[in-house]
Amino acid sequence: MTDPAAAFSLHPQLAADTIPVGDLLLSRVLLMNNTRFPWILLVPRRPAIRETIDLAEPEQAILWREISAASVVMRDLFRAEKLNVCAIGNMVPQLHVHVVARFATDEAWPKPVFGFAPALPYAETAGRELARRIAAGLGGL
Amino acid sequence: MTDPAAAFSLHPQLAADTIPVGDLLLSRVLLMNNTRFPWILLVPRRPAIRETIDLAEPEQAILWREISAASVVMRDLFRAEKLNVCAIGNMVPQLHVHVVARFATDEAWPKPVFGFAPALPYAETAGRELARRIAAGLGGL
Repeated sequence: MTDPAAAFSLHPQLAADTIPVGDLLLSRVLLMNNTRFPWILLVPRRPAIRETIDLAEPEQAILWREISAASVVMRDLFRAEKLNVCAIGNMVPQLHVHVVARFATDEAWPKPVFGFAPALPYAETAGRELARRIAAGLGGL
Repeated sequence: MTDPAAAFSLHPQLAADTIPVGDLLLSRVLLMNNTRFPWILLVPRRPAIRETIDLAEPEQAILWREISAASVVMRDLFRAEKLNVCAIGNMVPQLHVHVVARFATDEAWPKPVFGFAPALPYAETAGRELARRIAAGLGGL
């Protein structure tokens, strides 16, 4: 069998907007390079998938478990008041699941963060350090 | 053991905004009373749950399977070009998962539908009929 992950390549828009965190069993984890909100993406490393239901059922189950694990990390690491978990993908045609830590004091509250305002990138070392802490929370990717 | 579903009551805002579709094993299914977008909600019938990760793990697995089933129905019934699947819940403090059928021609595209514009309710019989078709797609709730 060929490895389906070998045929995967990250969409260039997702690569441009994010800082790498690491790979879970199925998903690549990325930190949105935007200091406005603690915000990660999970991207299943499978080619030509746009919807969660495009994945084979066993992989859907893995994705949901990875979303839960990522949700716990984002809640605990940032002491999130609310999590927003969304698969939208109207703009970028590669499945990516947003997990965002929200606060009643954040800029966009109570609106969703999508398209809220231009990203404010992290200072380079700060972004890498935060990605490292998220990876550690996810079990040291 | 007490039945956790017995202690569940639908949040009044969700009740006000929707037309009942029926109950899956875990989730109540509701049609948003808004002709702008084909849009349903899944609400796990458990009290005091705000995040998917607040559910017990076996119930999280059931919820994800119900989301997948609902996604297939929304894709097929409306021939959706894209699905948007989101757990946000910044406004209403009861877990509810949005499943929205999207089209490049819809009013909000490519933006998310949340907070886009005031709802345009269905004519009463049309709303009931659509809810019935969605229920049939979900196996005749």
